[in-house]
Amino acid sequence: MALDRDETSERVLEIAESLVSEGGAAGLKARSIAERAGIAVGSIYNLFGPLDRLHGVVNLRIMDRLAEAGNSAVRHLDEQGVIDTRQKLLGLARAYLEFVLARPVAWAALLAFNPRSLGVEEQGQYVRRLDALFEIIAGVLADDPTLDVSPEKRRQMARVLWLSVHGIVVQSIVMQESEDKARRVQSVWDHIDLLVTTFLRGVDHRPAELH
Amino acid sequence: MALDRDETSERVLEIAESLVSEGGAAGLKARSIAERAGIAVGSIYNLFGPLDRLHGVVNLRIMDRLAEAGNSAVRHLDEQGVIDTRQKLLGLARAYLEFVLARPVAWAALLAFNPRSLGVEEQGQYVRRLDALFEIIAGVLADDPTLDVSPEKRRQMARVLWLSVHGIVVQSIVMQESEDKARRVQSVWDHIDLLVTTFLRGVDHRPAELH
Repeated sequence: MALDRDETSERVLEIAESLVSEGGAAGLKARSIAERAGIAVGSIYNLFGPLDRLHGVVNLRIMDRLAEAGNSAVRHLDEQGVIDTRQKLLGLARAYLEFVLARPVAWAALLAFNPRSLGVEEQGQYVRRLDALFEIIAGVLADDPTLDVSPEKRRQMARVLWLSVHGIVVQSIVMQESEDKARRVQSVWDHIDLLVTTFLRGVDHRPAELH
Repeated sequence: MALDRDETSERVLEIAESLVSEGGAAGLKARSIAERAGIAVGSIYNLFGPLDRLHGVVNLRIMDRLAEAGNSAVRHLDEQGVIDTRQKLLGLARAYLEFVLARPVAWAALLAFNPRSLGVEEQGQYVRRLDALFEIIAGVLADDPTLDVSPEKRRQMARVLWLSVHGIVVQSIVMQESEDKARRVQSVWDHIDLLVTTFLRGVDHRPAELH
């Protein structure tokens, strides 16, 4: 029962993603994929080129899934009638934290991945995926009538919030063995809450001379 | 002219650090170190054990140097008579950004490094090094009489500020090929400034009901 090219690609990507989830970039071996997929090692290179590039394509899929998680969190908050910007941003941060906690090894591998090992076209895809994530946050800020900032400033704020939450979440991956998981997640969460709450308060209360 | 054990260790660490600076963790090869140091490959394993552990020791040295850069930035600001907390925090952030820009590959390798490949004792050294970095920022916050927060809250704020700036700086490493360097550094700097300024404003202007 031979699979067609698309089905085989999909199957290889699924297997590649589980291998990266188990053992990071080092776990991504053509032989392991070939064994699990029941195909020849050469087919993998024919479909995806070098393993670096395969890892890059896996990462793009993971980023798409994160964007889906973010958009679904926004929809969920809308359905619940949440209109408070802080609550919405915390909801998005929560979605991000849970996303990372569900795949810490794959996420660490994605962060360690060097997009420069990809072609220019795929590097562009990385940047666009990241921009899509920032846009979700910028959308939440745009919905807040009390934030009287330009679209450009809003994009900058969205990037700062995302990257800051990211810095806090990423640290939690590194430190994951140093204390028990529930305590660690609570601590990460307290830090995210302090960041989002204090930052938003800082925006709301800007004195006029500062802009 | 034989070197003694300490001199050889020091030499191996220096070479290991330049190899990591050039090619990341993948560049750290026992054969390359042995060639450059003019010693046998076996001596490296005798001195440091597996290469993972050697990379860990290199990382601890890099973190020590970052702490030195931070402390020296604080001294410099003191000498210049800077007392504004925002200016001090931006000075520290600048020192961190410059530190990372001077060794982007080694820093990315440090972040991708899994401390769990070290023993418990060395994992503890990692955590202590990181705590020392947070303490530098907590010290700046403690010197500000307008910030009426508990030492515990101050430590939490210091961690949030550090990790947030870290998230912004790290992103700049990943994106480093996407635009010209001067523009990229300016953009990173604008984001850091927005973060620190807005966060501090949020702390200063906390309404009483929120704590």
